[in-house]
Amino acid sequence: MRLHPAMEPLQPHRPRSIIAVTMGDPAGIGPEICLRLLQKPELFGECVPLIVGDYEILSRVAEKIGVPFKAPKLEALTRVLDGPSIYEPAGSLPEKNIQPGVNQAACGRAGARYIEEAVRGCLDERFAALVTAPISKKALELAGINYPGHTEMLADLTGSTNYAMLMYSDEIACALVTWHQSLRSVPDSLTPDRIADVANLASNTVGTLRDKDARLCLLGLNPHAGEEGLFGDEEQRILIPAKKKIEERGIHIDGPLPPDTAFTPQARERYDCYVAMYHDQGCIPFKMLAFETGVNITMGLPIVRTSPDHGTAFNIAWQGKAHPESFFAAYELAVRLSKPYRTGRTALV
Amino acid sequence: MRLHPAMEPLQPHRPRSIIAVTMGDPAGIGPEICLRLLQKPELFGECVPLIVGDYEILSRVAEKIGVPFKAPKLEALTRVLDGPSIYEPAGSLPEKNIQPGVNQAACGRAGARYIEEAVRGCLDERFAALVTAPISKKALELAGINYPGHTEMLADLTGSTNYAMLMYSDEIACALVTWHQSLRSVPDSLTPDRIADVANLASNTVGTLRDKDARLCLLGLNPHAGEEGLFGDEEQRILIPAKKKIEERGIHIDGPLPPDTAFTPQARERYDCYVAMYHDQGCIPFKMLAFETGVNITMGLPIVRTSPDHGTAFNIAWQGKAHPESFFAAYELAVRLSKPYRTGRTALV
Repeated sequence: MRLHPAMEPLQPHRPRSIIAVTMGDPAGIGPEICLRLLQKPELFGECVPLIVGDYEILSRVAEKIGVPFKAPKLEALTRVLDGPSIYEPAGSLPEKNIQPGVNQAACGRAGARYIEEAVRGCLDERFAALVTAPISKKALELAGINYPGHTEMLADLTGSTNYAMLMYSDEIACALVTWHQSLRSVPDSLTPDRIADVANLASNTVGTLRDKDARLCLLGLNPHAGEEGLFGDEEQRILIPAKKKIEERGIHIDGPLPPDTAFTPQARERYDCYVAMYHDQGCIPFKMLAFETGVNITMGLPIVRTSPDHGTAFNIAWQGKAHPESFFAAYELAVRLSKPYRTGRTALV
Repeated sequence: MRLHPAMEPLQPHRPRSIIAVTMGDPAGIGPEICLRLLQKPELFGECVPLIVGDYEILSRVAEKIGVPFKAPKLEALTRVLDGPSIYEPAGSLPEKNIQPGVNQAACGRAGARYIEEAVRGCLDERFAALVTAPISKKALELAGINYPGHTEMLADLTGSTNYAMLMYSDEIACALVTWHQSLRSVPDSLTPDRIADVANLASNTVGTLRDKDARLCLLGLNPHAGEEGLFGDEEQRILIPAKKKIEERGIHIDGPLPPDTAFTPQARERYDCYVAMYHDQGCIPFKMLAFETGVNITMGLPIVRTSPDHGTAFNIAWQGKAHPESFFAAYELAVRLSKPYRTGRTALV
């Protein structure tokens, strides 16, 4: 009698695919949420995390907040992984005497190095996906590295131009057409093609995660979705033509809907994902419902990338107070989203 | 022994202060939510409603949806009120053959007449407050009356210039600095004085309703409240100077805060009222939490005015499906807000 494949006994030391997890800014809550992740073996069934960060900082924070820390440090990315490990890019944080909760050039530089190394590993197909702990824009700036955030840096490192942010939780998902820019500059950043591209990415990503044809909601830009041109003409000029393009691609989409009534409990039941025109239109309702468990997914990169929906939280760094739920959720989603990439691949590095 | 004033036996037929309730567009859900209100005698302790609307339409809708309707029709506004009554302004709806759920000039004209009559009664101090059922902008337009909504019409009728919308529920309250205008036009509509005026009105109104010094939250205009000028300079140029003016008036206010994290459950506990820069910034979170019970209060008029937070709902008009909770809440808030005005006044009309 042949065993059904799903019933094969687990081999406890079978090499597993690697999810690269960058430690983020060493002075923020990145180190402690990485340590919390290492305490969750129930998450390491199909994949294992490789923390790309600083071994000494992790040890120091582990001691300070009283968390066990036994993961081995890899000397080089040249062997099979049996379990969670730490990889420290050479020379990434030469001076260990850093202060928690403070913007420092050395930390900005280190945070950027971890990302660079992890992205290279994803592009080389050594890693199945990337999960990033928060970095500080100010610390990056002090290090002479100027990006408004992770997303733009990742787009640059991977040569991506058609990408977008998706705020995701099982309860609510919002794809953003624009994000880190002034509200004043939003209307002129919208085009039918851009909106259609974001809706397309959202449909694919949310469709993969929910294993169904995703039903999208296109949000108006103006109050009452412009009230037939009375409060702004972008719905007529841009959003309705965008909707036509989206429907031509075979995607289910309603709208443009009045934004204020689109998020009532009754309306939310109808949609798998909202397509929001600007940052706060999507992020206000998202963070009301999923602040602790929300995940930021970058769509449109050649690699899978997720992150928690919070920042470095300098005010509570290295104190053991940070909630790691959003980070765990980011890790789990990276595992789910990378499934198609991992098929048949071993975890040789 | 003298009875304490609060223990005086109630006189069942003592005349009570009148709350004018306009029936709104006859073709919308106004008539049926007025009929539902008449079925709530438990709300008529201190005040009674006078429906300013159409007796025949109310009778017809009552029969259609199976609700008892016994309130008397006043021939003129010249007598004391013992209980809820109907007042039909002469010639307001000469032709009764109207269709539910359709924009009609006759209905626009009637809706405006009800408001005019009720406002006059409030200014004359015959009525203690005004509660308005929804009107249709399109029907008003067909009647040659052009206003973006009730609020602007009421401001015009009462000669008010410094007024603002407050979305209120016991759970969340949002004062709007701008509302029915395109998102594109918002940044240039903001000034420190305007923001300070709205905060002042909100502090007074919410302070009265909650009987305390209200704690306000000033929301940023831009994502992350501009991230120190990186995504827009309105926080530096306009909002921070506005906050200074507000604090000089002795009002508690935090901010400008990043809008997306200002509405998490934890953040909401800290504030009695948000000061929102644009319609959807306040109305998205408000309607997520208080869609059925939310009330729209116009602040800065010489009269007390409240309304439900929904529209005419033409698609379900005259079908008995409309939820009246928000309308009941609007009536109750009008009673609470008019308390200072009602002291010592009889209900002679």
